[in-house]
Amino acid sequence: MDNIIDKVLNADLKTVAHLIRDVEDGIPEVQEYLKALYPHTGKSYIIGVTGAPGVGKSTLIDQLIGKLRNNSNTVAVIAVDPTSPFSDGAILGDRIRMQRHNLDDGVFIKSMATRGHFGGLTQSTRSVINILDAMGSGYIIVETVGVGQDEVDIVKTAHTTVVVTMPGMGDGLQAIKAGGLEIGDIFVINKVHLGGADNTAADISLMLNLDQRRRKENNWTPPVLKIEATSSEEINSLVREIENHKSFLQSLPNPTKAQIAKSKIKNELLEITQARVIQETLKEINESEEFITLVDDIFEKRTDPYSASEKIMPQRFLSLSFAKINRGLGLGEKA
Amino acid sequence: MDNIIDKVLNADLKTVAHLIRDVEDGIPEVQEYLKALYPHTGKSYIIGVTGAPGVGKSTLIDQLIGKLRNNSNTVAVIAVDPTSPFSDGAILGDRIRMQRHNLDDGVFIKSMATRGHFGGLTQSTRSVINILDAMGSGYIIVETVGVGQDEVDIVKTAHTTVVVTMPGMGDGLQAIKAGGLEIGDIFVINKVHLGGADNTAADISLMLNLDQRRRKENNWTPPVLKIEATSSEEINSLVREIENHKSFLQSLPNPTKAQIAKSKIKNELLEITQARVIQETLKEINESEEFITLVDDIFEKRTDPYSASEKIMPQRFLSLSFAKINRGLGLGEKA
Repeated sequence: MDNIIDKVLNADLKTVAHLIRDVEDGIPEVQEYLKALYPHTGKSYIIGVTGAPGVGKSTLIDQLIGKLRNNSNTVAVIAVDPTSPFSDGAILGDRIRMQRHNLDDGVFIKSMATRGHFGGLTQSTRSVINILDAMGSGYIIVETVGVGQDEVDIVKTAHTTVVVTMPGMGDGLQAIKAGGLEIGDIFVINKVHLGGADNTAADISLMLNLDQRRRKENNWTPPVLKIEATSSEEINSLVREIENHKSFLQSLPNPTKAQIAKSKIKNELLEITQARVIQETLKEINESEEFITLVDDIFEKRTDPYSASEKIMPQRFLSLSFAKINRGLGLGEKA
Repeated sequence: MDNIIDKVLNADLKTVAHLIRDVEDGIPEVQEYLKALYPHTGKSYIIGVTGAPGVGKSTLIDQLIGKLRNNSNTVAVIAVDPTSPFSDGAILGDRIRMQRHNLDDGVFIKSMATRGHFGGLTQSTRSVINILDAMGSGYIIVETVGVGQDEVDIVKTAHTTVVVTMPGMGDGLQAIKAGGLEIGDIFVINKVHLGGADNTAADISLMLNLDQRRRKENNWTPPVLKIEATSSEEINSLVREIENHKSFLQSLPNPTKAQIAKSKIKNELLEITQARVIQETLKEINESEEFITLVDDIFEKRTDPYSASEKIMPQRFLSLSFAKINRGLGLGEKA
């Protein structure tokens, strides 16, 4: 095991990729590696990039990778967005376009499928962030669609969150209002050539001013950038704003920094625990004979799913807890 | 309680709205109402409408409501999409546009916030569908963004799923590939006036032909419609295809029908159970002193979140299960 930990800490990409696959597959042993790696985390700067499909997040990230690499940092990208060209859902042309970074050993790109269930995606994404952090990534970019609670939870792990939109999105602006407004540190209006970017910027600024959810103690005023992500120069303005926000976070008083860090830890601990409770209790329900019988009973209208869930739940809790009691007393099998 | 059940069965909208609020707030007593209502479900025809923000789902649904009402059916709409004009995230103008249906007693519109956590959204949406079904809705339209596992799970409750896109979405088409392809019974390319709809239709047809996930035993070939959702006539073609798919489902042999129904029941039972396990076990963790101490320990690097989760989990399972054991033996307090 020490050998594998060393390899990860020395950024051996093959070992890292293997460990990440184990995280995604929910292999129980992976927890021991995550424990050993955790003390080495906390050094990467995490950037969230969130926005609806089609606004050009991938082009922007592609450019951003180049800029951040220029400063001799390594960069890791986690695409949680199933529609991202970085993801398996990608159309061939886009994937090839992204491959150029695959030739660069300092760039690690990982797509997270949506196989994570009931918080599993959030938890496994966090574990992957921890692995990439421990391996010494200078920057970790996390790409999400920004809709839904899982998404928001994932984005909350980032130090700086970039919310991307484009002019004329119509309902797309509502996506920002519904989820992105609260979490955005920098707003980017991409594809300005489409026209109407000034209106979109005014809309976002207005929404920002009206939003009650933005914390009062946080004195950061999110900039609203109008750019063409294909332009290298205009991406520079985004990089500058990311650096500005990074400096802002560093300038915060220590109690505020501790408060932010603890809030993230709290979320992480809850998510890990929830994912495990689900995994441990429900895998067996799904495979039990009683479960199949209850499905039939509901189908035949002999019972309803609410009553049925009460029938399987207590039993499950009992058998699981007896195993735990025995284990705790040294009577049971090895964990 | 019988009084409330009667009121729901007689489509008393005030009672229905109240019960739905209790479902969203996770009031435990609501389970008893859901149990009593369940035998009255299974009569509504459920239509899923899914697509990225900005493709015009709400306009399409608005028109669809009118058409389905024309056939003297009542229609209920559940907007799970937080960016929907039906939702709280909506921009004022859009909300007003939708209000016209609010004057119609046969139309019930409900927006589901994303407050459901760890599967809670899926489960509470299902419960709301059951309530609206029991109250005698002819059609229930469920609007979602179609990205993420929760979304896909919700859409799987529908009899007919309409996947909406528009020409020139670029990465937006990947949204269909990532999630919508598998679940779509009818594909709609909206906003054909933008041009390029033929290319989009060809892309979708190609993806459908290539998709291995579509079940072989299912002989339904999803139509790909090119429409302008603002046009009443063109919405008629969508209504016809919905009716076609409904007839197709009715024509399936009984064993296939049972298989489809049982698969839905299985998902529902699992979701209800998972949501309850999470609710029962983790509410207390979050409030416990040990949890606060562990967060501090992780912050001070005295432990890691993976080890910490193991410390709180077994204890929680133990205390919970002892309560259950006592209750099971008649020794504990009332459930």
